[in-house]
Amino acid sequence: MDKKIYELSELIDKDLAENIYTKEEKFKLAEKYKSCIPENAMVLAQANPISGNIKYNALKAKKWIEWAEILGIKTIVFPEAFLMGIPFGDYLLKFPVIVEECCEWMNALAQLTRNTKVIIGFVESNNSDKNKKYYNSIAVLANGKIEKTVKKSLLLNHAELNDCRYFESSPIDSENRITTASNKKAGIIIGEDTENNFVFCDKNLSPVDTVETIIKEQHPDFLINCSASVTRTKKEQLKHNMLSSAAIKFHTPIVYVNQVGSSDCLSFDGASRVYDADGQLIYRAKSYEEQFFIIDIFDNEGQIYPLPKGLEKALNLQKEFSLNYEPDLERTYKTIIQSIRDYFKKTGFKRACLGLSGGLDSTVCAVLLADAIGKENVFGISMPSKITSLESKNDAKELAENLGISFLEVPIKEIYDVIREKFNNLFSQMEKNWNFRYKQSYTNDNIQARTRATILWGIANEFEKCLPIATSDKSEAYMGYATINGDMSGGYAPIADVTKTKLFALAKWMNKNREQKNSIPQSIIDKRPGAELAINPKTGKPLLAEEALMPYEFLDEIIWRVENLNQSINDMINIEFLYEKTEPVSKEQKLEWLEKFFHRMAAAGYKWSILPPAPIVDEHSINSAEYHQPIISSGINYKKTHLEDKIALIND
Amino acid sequence: MDKKIYELSELIDKDLAENIYTKEEKFKLAEKYKSCIPENAMVLAQANPISGNIKYNALKAKKWIEWAEILGIKTIVFPEAFLMGIPFGDYLLKFPVIVEECCEWMNALAQLTRNTKVIIGFVESNNSDKNKKYYNSIAVLANGKIEKTVKKSLLLNHAELNDCRYFESSPIDSENRITTASNKKAGIIIGEDTENNFVFCDKNLSPVDTVETIIKEQHPDFLINCSASVTRTKKEQLKHNMLSSAAIKFHTPIVYVNQVGSSDCLSFDGASRVYDADGQLIYRAKSYEEQFFIIDIFDNEGQIYPLPKGLEKALNLQKEFSLNYEPDLERTYKTIIQSIRDYFKKTGFKRACLGLSGGLDSTVCAVLLADAIGKENVFGISMPSKITSLESKNDAKELAENLGISFLEVPIKEIYDVIREKFNNLFSQMEKNWNFRYKQSYTNDNIQARTRATILWGIANEFEKCLPIATSDKSEAYMGYATINGDMSGGYAPIADVTKTKLFALAKWMNKNREQKNSIPQSIIDKRPGAELAINPKTGKPLLAEEALMPYEFLDEIIWRVENLNQSINDMINIEFLYEKTEPVSKEQKLEWLEKFFHRMAAAGYKWSILPPAPIVDEHSINSAEYHQPIISSGINYKKTHLEDKIALIND
Repeated sequence: MDKKIYELSELIDKDLAENIYTKEEKFKLAEKYKSCIPENAMVLAQANPISGNIKYNALKAKKWIEWAEILGIKTIVFPEAFLMGIPFGDYLLKFPVIVEECCEWMNALAQLTRNTKVIIGFVESNNSDKNKKYYNSIAVLANGKIEKTVKKSLLLNHAELNDCRYFESSPIDSENRITTASNKKAGIIIGEDTENNFVFCDKNLSPVDTVETIIKEQHPDFLINCSASVTRTKKEQLKHNMLSSAAIKFHTPIVYVNQVGSSDCLSFDGASRVYDADGQLIYRAKSYEEQFFIIDIFDNEGQIYPLPKGLEKALNLQKEFSLNYEPDLERTYKTIIQSIRDYFKKTGFKRACLGLSGGLDSTVCAVLLADAIGKENVFGISMPSKITSLESKNDAKELAENLGISFLEVPIKEIYDVIREKFNNLFSQMEKNWNFRYKQSYTNDNIQARTRATILWGIANEFEKCLPIATSDKSEAYMGYATINGDMSGGYAPIADVTKTKLFALAKWMNKNREQKNSIPQSIIDKRPGAELAINPKTGKPLLAEEALMPYEFLDEIIWRVENLNQSINDMINIEFLYEKTEPVSKEQKLEWLEKFFHRMAAAGYKWSILPPAPIVDEHSINSAEYHQPIISSGINYKKTHLEDKIALIND
Repeated sequence: MDKKIYELSELIDKDLAENIYTKEEKFKLAEKYKSCIPENAMVLAQANPISGNIKYNALKAKKWIEWAEILGIKTIVFPEAFLMGIPFGDYLLKFPVIVEECCEWMNALAQLTRNTKVIIGFVESNNSDKNKKYYNSIAVLANGKIEKTVKKSLLLNHAELNDCRYFESSPIDSENRITTASNKKAGIIIGEDTENNFVFCDKNLSPVDTVETIIKEQHPDFLINCSASVTRTKKEQLKHNMLSSAAIKFHTPIVYVNQVGSSDCLSFDGASRVYDADGQLIYRAKSYEEQFFIIDIFDNEGQIYPLPKGLEKALNLQKEFSLNYEPDLERTYKTIIQSIRDYFKKTGFKRACLGLSGGLDSTVCAVLLADAIGKENVFGISMPSKITSLESKNDAKELAENLGISFLEVPIKEIYDVIREKFNNLFSQMEKNWNFRYKQSYTNDNIQARTRATILWGIANEFEKCLPIATSDKSEAYMGYATINGDMSGGYAPIADVTKTKLFALAKWMNKNREQKNSIPQSIIDKRPGAELAINPKTGKPLLAEEALMPYEFLDEIIWRVENLNQSINDMINIEFLYEKTEPVSKEQKLEWLEKFFHRMAAAGYKWSILPPAPIVDEHSINSAEYHQPIISSGINYKKTHLEDKIALIND
């Protein structure tokens, strides 16, 4: 492919994002580049829809299709269900009007087509007497009409994407899936059709291999796969192997178009691509960006944009816990940035306020926010109490200055004092009726966290399109170590799926890899974490999180083992933790930490249930979009007990 | 059946709940009643398990089995998956140790059996090479051994119960489902096997009718159906028809054992029962209570305990919105009471504190709490601000006195003032960097609601086992008319699925039907609702909710139409609402209200996502356990637009 094509592609991407050209300028540009656009060029429309916002999605598609028409490109392919936007919501079930609107917009879009054929996903009404009223379909639009629609067969029932909840499955042999594209016969496959490949997968989702059936019965020259595939660490490798092996098996090129962008907690990474008939990757679009990607399946000298570190093969092999997060940090960073940006954009918010404590969590959040929505849209508020150290205050201020975000200091002492006095009076009166008063410090400690949240929500009420940010991290979420209506509370929680040790690594990585180097003061990275809510009576200094919990290196290895190896106490007690390689830990101490983890985790279910929206970053998470646990199951014992003990209790 | 049996059953229920008898006394009691226990008696163990708490469930089963042994009853039948407890959680997927423990406890229980055969649900490991590692199984325990296990075939993928997520389906023809019970051949069916009845259901869940297959191939004399069926208004009628029609079709008696109790948002209503071979109901246990229910399928003169009003046939026919909630109030009350009681018990909490505003929502919550956990465990706090009327303060106090709950008044003026002053200073400083300051009253209004929540969470921190209560109702949840970290916040939200007009009806019903009459002051019922957070500039009085929203009668009819008829704006605009029969509403006004509803509903997604745990009461709800909606779908247009307008936009 002529490399000038990618010059053009970049200009179009800019126009699609910012409307920089008039119609006339577009035609001029087309004229200039026409000679380098091959006869059989095809556009992979790697675009970012909004779930349920059909008008937005349709008008976006229109702009992309118009560009293809102007350039004289004969085929443009959009992701699965693009017009409705994935993830789906129960609005599909509750409001039939939404699917009616989707079908009408598809008709309107069809009228736009002249010389370009459009292959695009939507939700189709199903008028026959089936259990489900809709299909997840692909429409082929050409010459002002809907040429045909193709219905998805292999429906998902994944944690986060639940086709089965909404759609009827279409028998694969019942419909002709062939259309002409690039002067060849293209077979259309949808979403995870390739996941049922009998060569590649151990276990098959369905007794029929969709791809094989289409190849054998309908004889396409190549395949077009419209998809919307959630980004996960290990998934890229799986996806590559499946697509490549399907291409080899059937000796057929595969064009794969993926959705890009984030929706609440889910991220789609783009990286649309083409494999030739030998299974070789010959094109790959950018990751985490919209792209008007021009390809030619007959020209295997295509552009292969790099994947961010973390979507690569190496990570797939991780069998041991490691504190070397380096191989995954670029992906982590890009996933969170895209998630914040899209959450704000898609919900209509523009600005964020957050408490800057001078600690790691709020620091990392501030950097991510500045990068995602712009430093002019971020307001950091330092809200020191009497426990807050001078160092913390200075660190917060220095960070804000480095980032160029707005910053103010608002001491909370007066508010704290008046609430504490109110509490003292109230509790001594209540004691007359109620026993079992704790009289521990944490009632008053929490006043600080709740006052801070009250201030942030006040700012969000007062200033237009502003969201307060919850700065809790994943290690603390597992331990329920966050204050309700305090640091847990916010309109969005950017790092709720990043463990503490990974956050340290991410902070260092950002200091090195962001355009502006070393924005995060070294003292923040060197400091041991603590909420600065309470004084440790043993040390007389602010209580460190590790004193209340356990060393973060140990805690994060438990989380890693739970999430990736499904281990419980009995599995872990005899395994040497990475932490133990440098710090000796007695058996009793280790058991105490393990039991504390499972005890606190079991009790954290309520807090998990009210966690603000947060991006899923790791392979597994406790995000309620993927992990379902009744709160009343807090009495679970995660430990193996002896059969004899059970028999003794039963016979007691 | 000898009616004395039910005398005995009541005594046993009391012992099972409170351990009132020594072993010796139990044997004496058995001796006394032995003559009236029929040879073929069977116990339907309508018991209340805790999800995941296997030890608790096993030791509960042990007590019930022991009683059956003592009475010489030869068969006792427990609900589906009793040993694990329904609803299931992802702990099944993440922690294999839990299922191992379940299987071991089953082995231990088996060793207990002597003369009584135990039929009981559990989760079974599946060691073969299947997609899912577990089965939802029933074990038959006898003579100290596991006689057999039977695996569920027809797996559910309902909104709230998702068998497919956890279990492998067992082919129905692959296993012998027959055991001997009451000297006859009993065929075991699990959960919704009857829902696939080809006579009754329009659409079938599976190509095979499980019940028919068992009847035709395995020739049982009667069927035992172990179930765990969530209570819903219309479900009782469906259940009755399905069980009865299956009995008629196959001329086979059916014994149906249901779980009782609540788990987070889901409630199980018990009402276990027996149908004879002619489809006649001959036994029915109590609803919403554990019961050691003794039956004899050969004696059709059984006890039929009444269903609460609201589980009866009449409600199934409701095709119109009505303000006559009377037919459903007993069920509503019992569902919420059971939900509160079980949530507190199963999570280990004992006491509740709530703000008493003198308004309807907090009033109804206080009554329900007093009834569910005991008046000595409820603390009502009146937290007046300067807007709070004297009447409201007096109403709150009177209510507390009537109920006998603890009560204190804590004015929040000082806290409000210090926060407001802080805000004033902060915002005028922020204005230098940020534009678009609203300067509306609601920033300060919300300080009141947030201060109240801070006080309630402080109490919960200070006093052992105390949960603060969120008093939001369903009408307000739909409109997003509640303050984040304010009245929305709490450990439990008892009335989040009850609309405002239904709450008025419930208040009146409780005044009439509770043992203590008229606990709720009439002035609370007569008052028009308002949060008393802001002053209406037009009237100079506290802003009423209906002034900010729309008349509750109108709002609640929209909700009813959305939930039950899936209607949107276009469907509703030309239908006469009940409200319009007495109050004329102009077309413009009606459209404005409808558009306000859908606009506010679309934007309320974030608030729905952080709603505290709450019982599902109505046929449909926005509870996240059953309703899934991406927050970023807030841009959905719930209105039909013209095709020509779409085409115009596309061609623009």
